[in-house]
Amino acid sequence: MSRFWSQQVHALTPYVPGEQPQMARLIKLNTNENPYPPSPKVIAAVQAAADARLRRYPDPAATALRQAIADYHQVALENVFVGNGSDEVLAHTFQALLKHPAPLLFPDITYSFYPVYCALFAIDYRQVPLRSDFSLCLQDYEQPNGGIIFPNPNAPTGRAVALSEIEALLQRNQDSVVVVDEAYVDFGADSAIPLIQVYDNLLVVQTLSKSRSLAGLRIGFAIGHADLIEGLTRVKDSFNSYPLDHLAQVAGIASFADEDYFQQTRQRIMADRERLQEALIALGCEVLPSAANFLFVRPPVAAAEVMQALRSQGIIVRHFNAPRIQDWLRISVGAAQENEALVQALREIVHG
Amino acid sequence: MSRFWSQQVHALTPYVPGEQPQMARLIKLNTNENPYPPSPKVIAAVQAAADARLRRYPDPAATALRQAIADYHQVALENVFVGNGSDEVLAHTFQALLKHPAPLLFPDITYSFYPVYCALFAIDYRQVPLRSDFSLCLQDYEQPNGGIIFPNPNAPTGRAVALSEIEALLQRNQDSVVVVDEAYVDFGADSAIPLIQVYDNLLVVQTLSKSRSLAGLRIGFAIGHADLIEGLTRVKDSFNSYPLDHLAQVAGIASFADEDYFQQTRQRIMADRERLQEALIALGCEVLPSAANFLFVRPPVAAAEVMQALRSQGIIVRHFNAPRIQDWLRISVGAAQENEALVQALREIVHG
Repeated sequence: MSRFWSQQVHALTPYVPGEQPQMARLIKLNTNENPYPPSPKVIAAVQAAADARLRRYPDPAATALRQAIADYHQVALENVFVGNGSDEVLAHTFQALLKHPAPLLFPDITYSFYPVYCALFAIDYRQVPLRSDFSLCLQDYEQPNGGIIFPNPNAPTGRAVALSEIEALLQRNQDSVVVVDEAYVDFGADSAIPLIQVYDNLLVVQTLSKSRSLAGLRIGFAIGHADLIEGLTRVKDSFNSYPLDHLAQVAGIASFADEDYFQQTRQRIMADRERLQEALIALGCEVLPSAANFLFVRPPVAAAEVMQALRSQGIIVRHFNAPRIQDWLRISVGAAQENEALVQALREIVHG
Repeated sequence: MSRFWSQQVHALTPYVPGEQPQMARLIKLNTNENPYPPSPKVIAAVQAAADARLRRYPDPAATALRQAIADYHQVALENVFVGNGSDEVLAHTFQALLKHPAPLLFPDITYSFYPVYCALFAIDYRQVPLRSDFSLCLQDYEQPNGGIIFPNPNAPTGRAVALSEIEALLQRNQDSVVVVDEAYVDFGADSAIPLIQVYDNLLVVQTLSKSRSLAGLRIGFAIGHADLIEGLTRVKDSFNSYPLDHLAQVAGIASFADEDYFQQTRQRIMADRERLQEALIALGCEVLPSAANFLFVRPPVAAAEVMQALRSQGIIVRHFNAPRIQDWLRISVGAAQENEALVQALREIVHG
């Protein structure tokens, strides 16, 4: 609290990211990081790029990276925006495209950064409840709005909506921007990117943090009609000319060039997710169907206690002390050994 | 232009950074980059850190880097804020600390990003003219204000103000935040950082892009009273939890650990600046006294034409087509050979 703060700062309730403890031998299943390292080709490219060129500013438009993303997703360069992690891309999106007189709509249970952005940019919003089974029903968004945003698959539930439902929404809702936040899409949902060719109000946001194992380098992007991208670019160029550093740009390009590695690791994670889900159900947990690299799990004993008991054994999972989901835990899919350790520990906690 | 843009986006006039042409054999004296590479120890540290850890999120609070900066500048951890380049630090500063009912004050000739931030965050501002010799006179800021910001040394003029004048301003102006933007301070001005112990409304912003040769990795920081830092942190945590990637944090720490390299390169640049200044004066140029790694130069023939003529020879300098400074060029101090090539080319342009 300070008299020097701008008025708005007093009212902010900042986002709290999952913790990044520095303890050794931790089994860290709380922030949906990829259990596998980035492609060896990405590492090699970054090491090779770490040289005297770091004295120079990076390309402010990140053209080579944007072109790599455009080629990969079969869109044009002008359809691609990049930022310092998808969090920054989302921040610019809220300010550039989602601030309108009518309220922004998003689920009541979703990425908890959305209401934080609304507070930062003074955006009116309305939360639309998920159905009782935590499914996201896009018919519920048929109401006056200044924009719609939802993750697909949703977080922290992991549930996906079908592309046909998204297209039906876009047909009904053509006067405001619809943002599909696809942070976890590569683990089992269908991307809405092809629909940007038809709907000029659709923006799709993705990240290299999860399926491409690059959380440490902060690379996110958005794909949409050139007019939407121009709006984002105007805000970006009024905020920070060079949001993506040289090494992040190099890493992103190298990642899209190694398709084999990408496919192998995401397939392995999806297979491990199915095994983990079965094991948790066998322990008496309720587990939502997941199209993400995490599971949303209701253990047969109190979730907050389970989280603490796991923590005392060096296993970190995420518990949200929020309405409707206090009984649930969000558990990232780790490497096979980590998942086994989790199940073993949970077995002891549940069965005593 | 799009009906989907938030109202404010239409009114933005984004900042235009100096270009980063990808031509080979260019002599690039337009964006004040350091002519020398980062410390070999920084390069080695970055290469060693580019490994499987990139799959993990970086420390959102960048505690180790902030501690390194705190130790270097003899302040406490709670006095240090870091961001994705000093541009992001400044953006958060404008939103968190400089948006008040009374207008923000800054020079009429200064870093051209300041009015852009004001448009982005809807901040009222008033530009205070530099004196006719382009000196920044802090007595001129004795007027009602919601904040004051100026670079020291100023850009693009390169002129510095004395620390005693800054302290006198702080004594007169205790009810709003005073930001000293010290992007170029290591090339010959005195830092105001020690004054933060006395004045709780002083924020000092610096960057590793210039004097530490790390423009490519985007690292900026602010130092001030813990309450000011908390205000910045609240905005940062409402915008992007992880603005500094893992490799940037590692590079920053390594840079502050190699004091010898830092001193050698900045001394070399200052010595080369003096030589370049003498050569330019000998050619009939007017040159402002500079405490930065660039010179503000009025050539004896039209500046815009000189810029174009230099460009046709592969030498890029910066010309601002703005009131009062159309006759001037901002020329970064390059390596000795680059400076000599510039002088040689300019000699031919001036003397035909």
